[in-house]
Amino acid sequence: MDALSPSVELPKITLIGVGLLGGSVGLAVKKRGLAGCVTGFVRRVESIDECLSIGAVDEATQDLTEAVTEASLVVMCTPVGGMKDMATQIKPLLSTEAVVTDVGSVKASVIQEVEPILSRFVGSHPLCGSEKTGVANASANLFEGATCAVTPTEQSDTEAVVKVNEFWSALGGRLVNLTVEAHDEIVARTSHLPHVVASALVNAVLCKPCAGESDFFGTGFADTTRLASGSPTMWRDIALTNAEAIQKAIDDLQVELSELKAALTQKDADALEKFFKESKASRDQWLEGEGKK
Amino acid sequence: MDALSPSVELPKITLIGVGLLGGSVGLAVKKRGLAGCVTGFVRRVESIDECLSIGAVDEATQDLTEAVTEASLVVMCTPVGGMKDMATQIKPLLSTEAVVTDVGSVKASVIQEVEPILSRFVGSHPLCGSEKTGVANASANLFEGATCAVTPTEQSDTEAVVKVNEFWSALGGRLVNLTVEAHDEIVARTSHLPHVVASALVNAVLCKPCAGESDFFGTGFADTTRLASGSPTMWRDIALTNAEAIQKAIDDLQVELSELKAALTQKDADALEKFFKESKASRDQWLEGEGKK
Repeated sequence: MDALSPSVELPKITLIGVGLLGGSVGLAVKKRGLAGCVTGFVRRVESIDECLSIGAVDEATQDLTEAVTEASLVVMCTPVGGMKDMATQIKPLLSTEAVVTDVGSVKASVIQEVEPILSRFVGSHPLCGSEKTGVANASANLFEGATCAVTPTEQSDTEAVVKVNEFWSALGGRLVNLTVEAHDEIVARTSHLPHVVASALVNAVLCKPCAGESDFFGTGFADTTRLASGSPTMWRDIALTNAEAIQKAIDDLQVELSELKAALTQKDADALEKFFKESKASRDQWLEGEGKK
Repeated sequence: MDALSPSVELPKITLIGVGLLGGSVGLAVKKRGLAGCVTGFVRRVESIDECLSIGAVDEATQDLTEAVTEASLVVMCTPVGGMKDMATQIKPLLSTEAVVTDVGSVKASVIQEVEPILSRFVGSHPLCGSEKTGVANASANLFEGATCAVTPTEQSDTEAVVKVNEFWSALGGRLVNLTVEAHDEIVARTSHLPHVVASALVNAVLCKPCAGESDFFGTGFADTTRLASGSPTMWRDIALTNAEAIQKAIDDLQVELSELKAALTQKDADALEKFFKESKASRDQWLEGEGKK
């Protein structure tokens, strides 16, 4: 499969859940002509018209059997907490050739639950979430240049691994294959930690306001806390399924905060300057590297 | 003074330091025709041409006597750490009518140091900083709609307080007069805490990288850490001069992080959902309020 000369290699792709990510997969697949038919499985009857009018799917249905039958690739775009149930439900409906993947932000728990049920399941995580949700915010270009993590295991079917890699590559993603453990530890630091810190900052300040404070918030506060506007149930599930790695990441942050407090107590100008200097240098260097990607 | 029908009430305004804030004051004063002459005092010879070509001042000089003589208003836009020295230097040069203010992010230390030297000094803090610095990033509209804090004390000259209030109002600022103590406690929470958290996050993650992590940073990490790219020496001074209030603000954040860690340890789904739900609700409500301002 080649993004530059796409051929319809997938007669039918099924998206289970058509929100921001599912909808974007549908738009991207259709834009690139990668599938004969994109079918969306939705929970609510109103979603059928919404998906169709946005053009995220060719057909949408609330009937799981209809949705999954004869699909060559199924992408589970449902909350992490519901993947096991969904896998159990679709297992008897799938053709023997069907490959299944997902877009969950945490991988160990999903794979532990789904792999024993579906032998041709391979976990994925395209890193292009947003605090925005819903198919109305979906975009055909969401995956272009985005890291798409794929987490094969020793049990994974080789053909399924190749197919899932080719799929994200065809949508413009930059593939990174790694173990589930490495994935979950990394995203705890790069994605989950910023999120919980943003939420903690809001809880410490906006939720426990001091008199006269309301005029004193600027764009800095808005940007630092942007992630706190994400979906609470999605983040509850992420926190529950990646609890240990997130705790470890919080510990790493608390070490920094404790060192800073010590420098503040001692009015240690050199230590304070070093604290701000190192973070500026690292961030500026990182941004420069990102710009070159 | 009225922003809609400005009159040249100030024969001469002197800006001590012409960077992002000083340059923006100059551009805003000139745009509104509020002064007969805007004079900039600069340290480096190259800055003279830069200020003049951007139009931030009418005249720029490295001679402090020339800069300050006959000024009716002097705005100190220099780092918080150097205000006392500057006040001592300009004291013998000022006319008896001259009013002096500043733009420092912390007020107690500045006022403690400068008020005994300059009887017509009143502290200010326009809340429109940026991680960008330098006169090249200055803007005539920087103060429009921005909170401009003024912190008079019992020793303050009433006429000077009125003049400083009128000045920021004429530049489009929203005035908030409050005590130095209230100001410093508030900004520790609304501005300094987000900044130190952004820096701590960079120090915990980017400065101590784990293998394979570099592909896993997204816009969420970039936004949450944006403030960490601010000036290290400026933030060292802010941290030194507002150390106690910042420590207290960090304590407030650590309470939230500890509660979160407890919920993670106990895999307490309800507590986790509450944590994310409350922060989303508070932030969304706050943003809505900001939009109406």
